[in-house]
Amino acid sequence: MINRSCLSIILAAGEGTRMKSDLPKVLHKIAGLPLVCHVVRQVQALENSEIAVVVGKGAEEVSSVVRDFSKSAKIYVQKERLGTAHAALAAREMLVQNFDDVLVVFGDTPLIELASLNRGRDELANGADIVVMGFETENPSGYGRLIEKDGKLQAIVEEKDANIEQKKIKFCNGGVMALNGKRALSLLEQIKNENAKKEYYLTDVVTIGVSQGLDVRAITIPVENVLGVNTRVELAEAEALWQKRKAKELMLSGVTMLRPETLYFSYDTEIARDVIIEPNVFFGRNVKVETGVVIHGFSHLEGAIVKTHSEIGPYARLRPGAILENSSKVGNFCEIKNAKIGEKAKVNHLTYIGDAEIGRGTNIGAGTITCNYDGFNKWKTIIGENAFIGSNSALVAPVEIGKGAYVASGSVITEAVPENCVAFGRARQINKEGRADLLRQRFSSMKTKNSL
Amino acid sequence: MINRSCLSIILAAGEGTRMKSDLPKVLHKIAGLPLVCHVVRQVQALENSEIAVVVGKGAEEVSSVVRDFSKSAKIYVQKERLGTAHAALAAREMLVQNFDDVLVVFGDTPLIELASLNRGRDELANGADIVVMGFETENPSGYGRLIEKDGKLQAIVEEKDANIEQKKIKFCNGGVMALNGKRALSLLEQIKNENAKKEYYLTDVVTIGVSQGLDVRAITIPVENVLGVNTRVELAEAEALWQKRKAKELMLSGVTMLRPETLYFSYDTEIARDVIIEPNVFFGRNVKVETGVVIHGFSHLEGAIVKTHSEIGPYARLRPGAILENSSKVGNFCEIKNAKIGEKAKVNHLTYIGDAEIGRGTNIGAGTITCNYDGFNKWKTIIGENAFIGSNSALVAPVEIGKGAYVASGSVITEAVPENCVAFGRARQINKEGRADLLRQRFSSMKTKNSL
Amino acid sequence: MINRSCLSIILAAGEGTRMKSDLPKVLHKIAGLPLVCHVVRQVQALENSEIAVVVGKGAEEVSSVVRDFSKSAKIYVQKERLGTAHAALAAREMLVQNFDDVLVVFGDTPLIELASLNRGRDELANGADIVVMGFETENPSGYGRLIEKDGKLQAIVEEKDANIEQKKIKFCNGGVMALNGKRALSLLEQIKNENAKKEYYLTDVVTIGVSQGLDVRAITIPVENVLGVNTRVELAEAEALWQKRKAKELMLSGVTMLRPETLYFSYDTEIARDVIIEPNVFFGRNVKVETGVVIHGFSHLEGAIVKTHSEIGPYARLRPGAILENSSKVGNFCEIKNAKIGEKAKVNHLTYIGDAEIGRGTNIGAGTITCNYDGFNKWKTIIGENAFIGSNSALVAPVEIGKGAYVASGSVITEAVPENCVAFGRARQINKEGRADLLRQRFSSMKTKNSL
Repeated sequence: MINRSCLSIILAAGEGTRMKSDLPKVLHKIAGLPLVCHVVRQVQALENSEIAVVVGKGAEEVSSVVRDFSKSAKIYVQKERLGTAHAALAAREMLVQNFDDVLVVFGDTPLIELASLNRGRDELANGADIVVMGFETENPSGYGRLIEKDGKLQAIVEEKDANIEQKKIKFCNGGVMALNGKRALSLLEQIKNENAKKEYYLTDVVTIGVSQGLDVRAITIPVENVLGVNTRVELAEAEALWQKRKAKELMLSGVTMLRPETLYFSYDTEIARDVIIEPNVFFGRNVKVETGVVIHGFSHLEGAIVKTHSEIGPYARLRPGAILENSSKVGNFCEIKNAKIGEKAKVNHLTYIGDAEIGRGTNIGAGTITCNYDGFNKWKTIIGENAFIGSNSALVAPVEIGKGAYVASGSVITEAVPENCVAFGRARQINKEGRADLLRQRFSSMKTKNSL
Repeated sequence: MINRSCLSIILAAGEGTRMKSDLPKVLHKIAGLPLVCHVVRQVQALENSEIAVVVGKGAEEVSSVVRDFSKSAKIYVQKERLGTAHAALAAREMLVQNFDDVLVVFGDTPLIELASLNRGRDELANGADIVVMGFETENPSGYGRLIEKDGKLQAIVEEKDANIEQKKIKFCNGGVMALNGKRALSLLEQIKNENAKKEYYLTDVVTIGVSQGLDVRAITIPVENVLGVNTRVELAEAEALWQKRKAKELMLSGVTMLRPETLYFSYDTEIARDVIIEPNVFFGRNVKVETGVVIHGFSHLEGAIVKTHSEIGPYARLRPGAILENSSKVGNFCEIKNAKIGEKAKVNHLTYIGDAEIGRGTNIGAGTITCNYDGFNKWKTIIGENAFIGSNSALVAPVEIGKGAYVASGSVITEAVPENCVAFGRARQINKEGRADLLRQRFSSMKTKNSL
Repeated sequence: MINRSCLSIILAAGEGTRMKSDLPKVLHKIAGLPLVCHVVRQVQALENSEIAVVVGKGAEEVSSVVRDFSKSAKIYVQKERLGTAHAALAAREMLVQNFDDVLVVFGDTPLIELASLNRGRDELANGADIVVMGFETENPSGYGRLIEKDGKLQAIVEEKDANIEQKKIKFCNGGVMALNGKRALSLLEQIKNENAKKEYYLTDVVTIGVSQGLDVRAITIPVENVLGVNTRVELAEAEALWQKRKAKELMLSGVTMLRPETLYFSYDTEIARDVIIEPNVFFGRNVKVETGVVIHGFSHLEGAIVKTHSEIGPYARLRPGAILENSSKVGNFCEIKNAKIGEKAKVNHLTYIGDAEIGRGTNIGAGTITCNYDGFNKWKTIIGENAFIGSNSALVAPVEIGKGAYVASGSVITEAVPENCVAFGRARQINKEGRADLLRQRFSSMKTKNSL
């Protein structure tokens, strides 16, 4: 393949009305990534490959998302929706460049795999002019059937045109095609719109190729590779397949999952060997978990790095910028945002750490809050090594707490606490003996005043 | 149908011993609603329909629940458990009223659908006297088989009485029946108890009808429509089917669900188009979510209204009376009870807001607690627009905080804070330099005293 | 069986390279228990039974875990990995003791059931010399086929040696064997390693037995009983089957589960009748839940006792040593560790209770923290009956709060609060009128200083 150039045309112009959404269909996400970007990601991995994305419905939004995801993809706008062949021709500017291979894929089939695309290219390299990617199914009803003879594809017969024998065929058209790059433009231009909807159908290329004696073939790829998303039910189905694939890949590489089907991974989640994941954990985008980490249930991670042998959760929320150094702990009902938790440091209970650096070996007591926001700006809290922050303290940023410092429980800390200093910021306790009953009498008689 | 009157008799008197429960079987819930109420809900939707519910085991409890759910349902008590026909006759007072259609349904088949019931009525309207609702199954073993000839039902043959040919039949008795209302009482009265258990079986109506030359028919309805709940395993299975049905309906209407099988909906959950729901979210009764809302994982909602473009969770708990105005945010480890969160207001971290009104644009800092309970009464907290409540504050209700007011972090607020006022309620910080090591020495030697 | 002695040899020496783990394969867990201990647990339940565990890879670690779990199991080390028969002979010291029955089972088949083992013993009691436990499967490809004639087992034919007819056989070798204890040692010693890998295969005992005219039989046991775990994907599959089995058992005994497949149970979880469990709940080891309890979603329990009619969650975390007395409540975002919550006491919101005793009827306000740790020791908090702890209080342990005492909201309590005493530990509120706008001006202009 190394010597063959390739153009991938991604058709992403569809209306997607059955999504019932204000968002263009191909921008709906699975695994945290828009459908069309899943496809871009696969074709990007092809060797010697360039990418054209044809947009239509929601052209600006789609273009913007694709450009953010791939600097090299070229965008073409299909002004009217006149069929798949018409859409592919929107990339005429690239089709004239005589690539060796041309792939036509769809922006709403997020489970397409590099291996399948390469199998199409292999056929082209072996002399095919047109390669249709098909799939086998026990329930072919509704799909176009692939009619083969002597190893060559003869025709694609639509359900409504199929005779009884043809209806029994379980080899169906998956839509994706690989075309000889020297012939692709010419073939696409020969397609006519002589049909009920007056549209130009890409599948007509098969009839044209066969009639001209070209080498037309069909190959079998896994059905999920061509699974199209047209409703949110299908979106959820594609998501489920993607998640299953990802979970399996991670488990085979050495990750333990107690209940894989209750987990959620993003497309870029990285998890190392001998990590244990309890049920009900959510991995948003951009998370990296190193070896030996234990993630307890009900944890929610996004934009976070969790280094070796750390332990998080249950109910740990790591937000973007959270970095947990080796063997650190973040426990229940704790939120960490844009903060570094030092080696062996512990943030175990009911705590909010935002915009902070916590030193190695430091212990943050239950109920501690970094007060990082004043209504306008976010300020930073810096805590040194081996410090002790007593429970239920409020640390009003910007503030620095020196190494070895000790903050008494229930303190409000508004000024720097130097190294080895004990800081108090709480009122003295006053006991009023024998008064609780009186208080109760008063409270119990207040029903009329202000109570809800 | 509009001109035909209908009586639905719901048999809800069963013992339910296999539930192993102190609660009567038909009061066990799926989707937050007792089984019998699911059935009431469907028959209530029939046109020109009246409802009789026959209760027996736990009669008082069941009656009370049914009455709360449906004002119009009439309750009849079956004193002894002598079979389904005997139970139906408990509603004799209504059977004598000559309805056009009589439906006999079961209080433990919560997935019955209006469409199936209407199909039974259609057959009656077309001349049938007795309509048996059946289902097709690959594993008919154990079910009564429906024996048809020339489009008419000849007999229901029980498994134990079936010959080899009959056992191959996959069309089975679902139990539910539609009867010509003019003949229903007479037919039921002709049923005898000449069998091993000395019970009056509703299914015997078929033999009687056939022997008298009546028009007896069977129709096919989806198997889940007649799925009976006899154990908690079957309860969970019915629940799973219900949840799948609801999730599909919502997705097709434009709701995105990342992992539908990890969500839980109640029978009355309303969710608008273009709402996104992360995995692991629980919708208790009486929740309404408007368009454009994002619900992050691990959220738990009950009795709440979430208005357009709000964002909640992860780990948001909305309790009854929570109203989130447009574009408001409730974040992690926050509990909202009987409180209104104003437009664009934010309650982002580790906060309890109970019995309160939060003004538009107000920011509630992390760890804020409304102290709404004094041991006797619940008091109200009112916060104006664009106020700022510093982190880890305690607001002791009843209390009002004016618009634009600013509460310093770590404050205990016990009195009103007027508009544009800055309020402090915290102690000054005291640093004792160089004392942390001494403290540590003291603490580390205290092992014998009071430690656990 | 009562008069027959039994030796169970558990082969637990495998390499487990496909687990991609530093942990020996048989120490990977399902339901909170290492695989090998699941097997030990089943054979321990056999009557008149002794246990030999043969370890190899990670011998020390495995031995230590097995010894902790079962005092009576004897451990033998297989020094080299030379096949299953070689491994079984590592227990020669016990094989010479002439047990009536010898069972050879595997440390990586955690779903083996007592009933299956007893069926093997029954065959021995009825005269069999060798009993192979097989299973039926629709997809036998890859498994050794069991060839029977006249009710006797003739041979085990491996996939690669099977002819076309044999390949159609769906009765496959499950690996587990029961041997006549008087012949077991002799049979094992006759096995040779004349094969490609030069290993001693236990299955060869069948050929030897048949050639010597012994009574060789095969019995059918459920396929999951012999499901081996070789990868983490298979580990997750075994876990899923175990969880399904446990959930079903609990539901049939009277536990309601709204979404059983989102729950996680440990091997020793005990839950009584008429307990209701919402979706997404995790039961770690050593949890007991009594009748009438309601467990709301997103709860995480470990080492806890929840007594009758208590209610926990959503988002309740019970850690080891948590004891909830009858009709008590632990609500959202609450963590209870090594603490007793008295009858009808309430800990409802955002609270950490560690190393504590809470009296009957006491109410703990939202945001309360027991400050139990001083950096060195854990100290105890004791609160009497019918006390009231105001919201957002910090209780600095060691501390006692007497019965009927009343702690004001937002207090830091460092000294004892006697019975019926009202305690304050908070600063007075100061309002600075008209100053909020000035503050906002200052804050809004501070962008350059220290902000992130």
